[in-house]
Amino acid sequence: MLRCIITNFHRAQLFHKVKLFRPIMNQRSKSGPFGYIQTKALVFSKYGEPNEVLSLHQHSITPSIPPNSIVLKTLASPINPADINQIQGTYPSRPAFTPLLGTTLPCAVAGNEGCFEVVSIGSLVTTISRGDWVVIKSPAFGTWRTHALAQEDDVLRIEKEGISPIQAATISVNPCTAYRLLKDFENLDKGDWWIQNGANSGVGRAAIQLGKIWGLRSINVIRERSDSTSTEALRKELLDLGATHVLTEKELMDRNIRDRIMELTDGGKENVKLGLNCVGGKATTALVKCLGKGGHLVTYGGMARQPLQLPTGRLIFDDLRFSGFWVSRWAADNPEEKKRMLNEILNLIRIGSLRDNHYQEIKWTWDTELHVLKDAIRGTLDGYRSGKSIFTFIDT
Amino acid sequence: MLRCIITNFHRAQLFHKVKLFRPIMNQRSKSGPFGYIQTKALVFSKYGEPNEVLSLHQHSITPSIPPNSIVLKTLASPINPADINQIQGTYPSRPAFTPLLGTTLPCAVAGNEGCFEVVSIGSLVTTISRGDWVVIKSPAFGTWRTHALAQEDDVLRIEKEGISPIQAATISVNPCTAYRLLKDFENLDKGDWWIQNGANSGVGRAAIQLGKIWGLRSINVIRERSDSTSTEALRKELLDLGATHVLTEKELMDRNIRDRIMELTDGGKENVKLGLNCVGGKATTALVKCLGKGGHLVTYGGMARQPLQLPTGRLIFDDLRFSGFWVSRWAADNPEEKKRMLNEILNLIRIGSLRDNHYQEIKWTWDTELHVLKDAIRGTLDGYRSGKSIFTFIDT
Repeated sequence: MLRCIITNFHRAQLFHKVKLFRPIMNQRSKSGPFGYIQTKALVFSKYGEPNEVLSLHQHSITPSIPPNSIVLKTLASPINPADINQIQGTYPSRPAFTPLLGTTLPCAVAGNEGCFEVVSIGSLVTTISRGDWVVIKSPAFGTWRTHALAQEDDVLRIEKEGISPIQAATISVNPCTAYRLLKDFENLDKGDWWIQNGANSGVGRAAIQLGKIWGLRSINVIRERSDSTSTEALRKELLDLGATHVLTEKELMDRNIRDRIMELTDGGKENVKLGLNCVGGKATTALVKCLGKGGHLVTYGGMARQPLQLPTGRLIFDDLRFSGFWVSRWAADNPEEKKRMLNEILNLIRIGSLRDNHYQEIKWTWDTELHVLKDAIRGTLDGYRSGKSIFTFIDT
Repeated sequence: MLRCIITNFHRAQLFHKVKLFRPIMNQRSKSGPFGYIQTKALVFSKYGEPNEVLSLHQHSITPSIPPNSIVLKTLASPINPADINQIQGTYPSRPAFTPLLGTTLPCAVAGNEGCFEVVSIGSLVTTISRGDWVVIKSPAFGTWRTHALAQEDDVLRIEKEGISPIQAATISVNPCTAYRLLKDFENLDKGDWWIQNGANSGVGRAAIQLGKIWGLRSINVIRERSDSTSTEALRKELLDLGATHVLTEKELMDRNIRDRIMELTDGGKENVKLGLNCVGGKATTALVKCLGKGGHLVTYGGMARQPLQLPTGRLIFDDLRFSGFWVSRWAADNPEEKKRMLNEILNLIRIGSLRDNHYQEIKWTWDTELHVLKDAIRGTLDGYRSGKSIFTFIDT
């Protein structure tokens, strides 16, 4: 039979068109005959809206893996806005479409972040053992799947003691981004001020908490909710997390915002040195008004899908600076520091200093149907959800 | 008589309401009775359009100056766009309005750059001698006047050998700005590419020449002239100065500009690392498209009076950076380096490596009337002139 002649030399040969199996396999089981692992993945063969281009593809992983490979079982994988952009084709980190999974057209697995348990290792793997937890080093690996075959070098082992799968699955993007944004662009000392919009985002919440831990003071901008009670509840929640002040976008856009900021920062004696922006358009122009001389605006997202408008005069005479930050590029350039930082962040989680976001768990079992997964993905970009959606894998 | 009881203790007392003199003075002479120097200055008592707020004020400087003071005779003083903005009140470096010149309302002298000859020195002045040439260290001193009283510390002595008054009067702003723009924001090595708009401006022309001297390669954007012959003549002129390529703004705004830049830079293998911007608006958005990954746009002017529009995606994923540069702030922060750089620039002028801009000399004699001076000032901001206007002082 065809499955018997699969060789182990190439990754290309590690996947098998599952349709050849179907007639003889137990569709409800993750283990196929001869130790093959049955796996499902959310894949796409062309860029477009997730609802239109995603499909759930089933295939198998051979038990005899190459010496430097490992087999991973997914424990949790979040749905980040960048994952959606990647499927839409607007994200610069594009996965390779490959025929290896046995789809009719070459495809890529969606998702970029996740926590995995190592279920088997190749004969030459030395740094990782069965049962270890790992996260993926680089984007475009494909994490929305029940299992994956990886190279030893694709992953970072993490110490799972005192950490939940959801916590581990969500440290690589948001807390890392927040950490670098606060550390790498301005030298902020204890008591220094910074400001951000999208304060309710995953990055925003992590930044509030990290900033608090490091003794910084923050001004946090949120969009108004549908009613004032919800807005006030959110304001209180962010203050509880460690925000120094919380403003609504409407308050930020008020023409007297500079006076308000002066009031908050001891008559303007204390400059707001750093601004973090994930919005764009007029709301960001308003944020820039709050920066003091020599201030630095760092953009890491563009939810409003509008360009930044920067006032020439302030750029020149107030010595403002504008940069962008992309955590994937940073991670690729700084693998050792990433490892160190992940451990620092994990420790902060263990001691309770860095609290979880709200998560909406989407349980992915062997029988979960495509439309349930798609429903979870839909709406991730609107920014009003009370928490991130995350796939957690059960009995897969 | 009132003029006899002027004391020397305070600068406040060094100026004398000239109207007291008028009946007894020779209006055509720069030397009044008792060694007083008669002087004229373009002054303003409120911010507004130069044509409306400037007046020509005559007053006198006492011959007995304080021990640390010097008396300067103006040799040349250019009309820079910033001078106009300063009169309009839109420039952040604002001169103090003072009653010391004897105007009905407190006033300030316009102009920020110039070359002066020292005509007398106080008893404690050690670093400067009569006959020396000096430039002014800081803006808002007031240079559009025939003479000025200054402190020894207000000026920088320059070696006049081989330098014309016009060359000396125009090094502090344009060549210094061009020098810092090319040196302080990106490490450019021989052969590296940079791009600028406003290539025909004083800064632009200095940058072309300095870049050439340092082995850099430049893409220079100019606005179309009224006819193609003039445009081509200007293109040729900038190529002769040392520009590697010259594009018109229309060519820059073409949708295929990225392909064009790829062509110019060896198929895009050679990144355009630095962009210099003095325009703003859409033309600058187009310029940003020409920057390679990690590129840095430095804004030092905003002729189009429109904000910069920056694409969020490129900011994040292509690691672009945006800064502003203001030569006055730089000079205030780096007095020693400014001195060294001025000498380097003067040497480049002496050996013929840094050529003059075109200048339209406005001869300012004792009898020159206000409307002649105002005519010269008008139109400085439109940017289409073939050269800068500069006051040169004759028999004042």
